[in-house]
Amino acid sequence: MARPTNQVLSILQTRLDKAAILAGDAIDPRYSDDLSGGPGARPELVLRPRNTSEVAEILNACNAARLPLVVQGGRTGLSGGARVLAGEAVLSLERMTALQEVEPTAGTIVAEAGVPLQVVQERADAAGLVFGVDIGARGTATIGGNIATNAGGIRVLRYGNFRAQVLGVEAVLADGSVLSSMKGLAKDNSGYDLSQLFVGSEGTLGVVTRACLRLHPKPVTQSAAFCSLPSLDAAFGLLKFLRGRLGNLLSGFEVILAPLMGDMVSALGFTAPVALTSPVYVLTDIQGMTPGADEEAFTEALSQAIEDGLVEDVVLSQSEREYQGLWTLRDDCNRFLFAEGAMLSLDVSLPLPRMGAFLDLAEAAQAHADPAARAYIFGHLGDGNLHYVVRTDRPNEVAKAVFDCVAKSGGSISAEHGIGLDKKAYLHLTRTPAELAAMRRIKAALDPNNILNRGRIFDMPPALPSA
Amino acid sequence: MARPTNQVLSILQTRLDKAAILAGDAIDPRYSDDLSGGPGARPELVLRPRNTSEVAEILNACNAARLPLVVQGGRTGLSGGARVLAGEAVLSLERMTALQEVEPTAGTIVAEAGVPLQVVQERADAAGLVFGVDIGARGTATIGGNIATNAGGIRVLRYGNFRAQVLGVEAVLADGSVLSSMKGLAKDNSGYDLSQLFVGSEGTLGVVTRACLRLHPKPVTQSAAFCSLPSLDAAFGLLKFLRGRLGNLLSGFEVILAPLMGDMVSALGFTAPVALTSPVYVLTDIQGMTPGADEEAFTEALSQAIEDGLVEDVVLSQSEREYQGLWTLRDDCNRFLFAEGAMLSLDVSLPLPRMGAFLDLAEAAQAHADPAARAYIFGHLGDGNLHYVVRTDRPNEVAKAVFDCVAKSGGSISAEHGIGLDKKAYLHLTRTPAELAAMRRIKAALDPNNILNRGRIFDMPPALPSA
Repeated sequence: MARPTNQVLSILQTRLDKAAILAGDAIDPRYSDDLSGGPGARPELVLRPRNTSEVAEILNACNAARLPLVVQGGRTGLSGGARVLAGEAVLSLERMTALQEVEPTAGTIVAEAGVPLQVVQERADAAGLVFGVDIGARGTATIGGNIATNAGGIRVLRYGNFRAQVLGVEAVLADGSVLSSMKGLAKDNSGYDLSQLFVGSEGTLGVVTRACLRLHPKPVTQSAAFCSLPSLDAAFGLLKFLRGRLGNLLSGFEVILAPLMGDMVSALGFTAPVALTSPVYVLTDIQGMTPGADEEAFTEALSQAIEDGLVEDVVLSQSEREYQGLWTLRDDCNRFLFAEGAMLSLDVSLPLPRMGAFLDLAEAAQAHADPAARAYIFGHLGDGNLHYVVRTDRPNEVAKAVFDCVAKSGGSISAEHGIGLDKKAYLHLTRTPAELAAMRRIKAALDPNNILNRGRIFDMPPALPSA
Repeated sequence: MARPTNQVLSILQTRLDKAAILAGDAIDPRYSDDLSGGPGARPELVLRPRNTSEVAEILNACNAARLPLVVQGGRTGLSGGARVLAGEAVLSLERMTALQEVEPTAGTIVAEAGVPLQVVQERADAAGLVFGVDIGARGTATIGGNIATNAGGIRVLRYGNFRAQVLGVEAVLADGSVLSSMKGLAKDNSGYDLSQLFVGSEGTLGVVTRACLRLHPKPVTQSAAFCSLPSLDAAFGLLKFLRGRLGNLLSGFEVILAPLMGDMVSALGFTAPVALTSPVYVLTDIQGMTPGADEEAFTEALSQAIEDGLVEDVVLSQSEREYQGLWTLRDDCNRFLFAEGAMLSLDVSLPLPRMGAFLDLAEAAQAHADPAARAYIFGHLGDGNLHYVVRTDRPNEVAKAVFDCVAKSGGSISAEHGIGLDKKAYLHLTRTPAELAAMRRIKAALDPNNILNRGRIFDMPPALPSA
C-alpha cells in the first residue's frame, strides 16, 4: 500500500468500526465506477462512515496525509464523477441512511446523504405530500449525490431543480470542519447561503452528509396528453400557450423527435398512441387540486391548440392507468436506447429561442463528423434540456462537433448530468476563463490540498511543494 | 484627499465621462446612508459607471490603490449595508438602467443592476407575465440590490425568494474580472453556479451588473380573505390546511398579531373588516388561472376552516377593489409603524413548529430587558418570517434579548433584510464559527484585498502588510 493510505489506516483503524473500512480483496468491483461505464481504478481503501463526525474524522486524516478521496452515493452518475482514479480512496455514504419523519407544519424532511431518492418520495407520499424531484435512477441514486449534482428530471418545470428543494445542508470540508445549516428555514439572509454552494459542486467543495428538504402539497388531479406536432416551433408555441393558460397546473412538457419515436416503436413493437407521421411529439401533463375544473381546463386548452394548428393529433389520458401508460412511453425512450447498446449520450441545455437553430447546426456538424451517425433526441423541452444521443463510431468527433454548436447557440454542455471526468475537456467551450478561474479560487479556498474529487469538473494547477 | 483616492482619480478621470465621477461638494448627502437611518460618513468620491466594462475599470483601479468601495443601488436597505464608512468611495449603479424586452418563448428578461424593481414588474405585466417578487420599496429598490440581498416580500410563498428568480448574473470581481453567466438557462450543471453565489452576499463578493430573470404566467383570478383566529396554533393549522387543499393556488399568507392590529386601527382611524376581539389575524389570498373554480375552491376551503374552528370570522373580497382594500390593511402596518417614529425593527425567521414557543420566550425576555417595551409583530407567516418591531428606550438590550430567543429556537436573525453593518454583532448567535470561517475563506478568495463592502456581514482579520 502507498504511504498516505497506510498513514490514514493507522489513524482510522482505532476510531471506526470494522465495517467502516474495506481494504484489498474485501473491496467489491462495484466501487470502481458509476453508470457512465468508464474503466475505473481499483481503490486500495473504501471508507464507509456511519455519521457526520466519522466523515469529519476521515477527511481530517486524509487531508493530513494528502490522500485524495472520491465521494460515492448511489453511483448512478453519467459523467464519471464517482469513477475511481489511481491512488484515490473511496468515501462511500452508503451506511448513512437515517431518514427523519416528515415535519408536518413546515412540510419538510431531514435525510442523511445515503438515503435513496425513492425512499424520500415514499415517506413524503405517506404524509400526504410530494417531493419535487423525480428521475429514472430514483431507486438507487441518493440524496447526497442528488445534491452534489443538482439533479433535474421530469418535474423541474413544476417544482424547480434539486437546488430549489434544499432548505439546508450539513457538509464536511476537506479539513474536517462541519458546516451545519440545518435550520430548515424558507427565508434566511444571515450571511452567505453555504448550503446552496454545495448544490451542483459535484463533491469538489465538501461532502454533503445531511439535508433538510422541502416538500409540496400532493396534487389530487392528473391528466396527460400525447400530441403530434407539425414542427419544433409548434412545440414552443404549445409550451407558451399552455403555460399562459394553465400556469402552474402544467406539470411536465417532454419532447420526442421523429427518428427516435419511429425507431423505438419499431424496436419495442408496440402501437403508438398517435399516427407516426409528424416530426415532433410532446408528452405534457397537468397536476392540480380541483377535480373536474382542472381536467376541463386542460381539455379546453388542448382543443384550442388543435384549432390554432399547434397540435395535429392528441390522445388524452382518461384514467390513472392511461396516465401511467402515456408516461411509460417516455420511459421507453431510455429502455430502447439502453437496449441499443453503447451510444454517445449528451445532455445539453439551450436558450429556447435558439434551440431550433441549434438543432439545424448540430445536424450538419454531426453529419460532417460522421456521415453514418444517427441522432436520437428527446428531453425536457419545458426546461430547454435535450438528451442528444447518437449512434456513431466516432463518439469523440461527434461530441466535439455537437458541443461546438451548443457553445455557438449560447447553451450549456451539461443540463443535468454534470461535468465529472468525462465532460471536463469540453467545459471551456461554454464557461469563460474568468468563470473557470473563479471556480478554482473557491475550490482552493475550501480544499487547499485538493483531496476532494480531484480532477472532477476542472483540474487545479499543481501545488507548490510544501516547505 | 487621501492618497488612494487621488491615485484612483488620476486613472479614472481619463477613462470615464464627467458624470461618472462626483467629488467634494458635488456629492449629495443622500449617498451617505440607506433607509436604516444610521449616520453615514461623507464619501470623498462617488463613481457612477455606465456599463459593465466601466465597473471593471473602477474596481481594477480601486483594487490596485486599495481604496475600499461601498456598492449602492436604491439605498432602501434596512441593515446599513450601503451606509458609507470613513475612507470609502461609493460605487453607485444608478446610471445602469438598461432593460431589455421580455423574451416571450422562454419568459425571461435581462435587466441592468440599476433598474428599479417596479420597472421590471411593469415590463413583465405588459408582456402578459408577472415577476415573482414584490416588496414595499419596489419603486426605488433596484435589481442589483435585490439580488445582493436576496429580497423576499409577500410572494415568497408562491414564487420563492429573489434567488429563485435569478437565471443568471453578470458580476465584476474586486480585481475587475467579469463573470458573465447570462445564458438564461433553466437548467445548467456545467461547473459551479457562480450566479447563485452572489445572491444574498450583500455586495461583499462582487458587484452585480446585470441579471437574467425568470418571469411567470400572469394569474387571471384573485381573491383575498381577512380572517380572525383564536390562536397562533390555529394560524399554523389554517396554513397547513389551505396549502394541502389549494396547493399553489395559495399565494399569500400574512399574519398580524393583536396589539398591532388594535393600535393601528385606533391610530389610523378606520373600521376593521372583522371584530377586533381575537389574538391573531391572517390575510391570505389565492391567484389562479380558472375563473369560477378558483374562487369556489377558496370559499369552500374557508367555510371548512370556520367549521373546523381554525377561523372565527372572515371577510372575503368580492371585487378587485375589495381585494386591493384588504391588501391595503397589510401595508397600513408599515404606515402606522413609520408614523410612530423610531422603533427597534427586527426581522426574524423561525422554524414554524417552534414559532409559538419563540414568541412566549421573546415576550418574557423583552419584558426583562425593558418592562415598558411594547412589541408589534406581523409578517410573512407562510415563510416563517416575522417582523418584530418594538417601541423601547433600550433598543440594544431588547435586540440582544430577542435575538437570544431566536438562537435558542433555531431561527435566523435576518429573514430578508440582511446583516449589513447593523446586525453584524449578532451574527455569531445563529451561525457557527465553522460557518463564519468558511464565509471568510470565500471572501478572501474572491476579494483578497477586502475592498468590496468591507465590514458588511462580518469583519475580516487584518491583512499582513505586503512585502
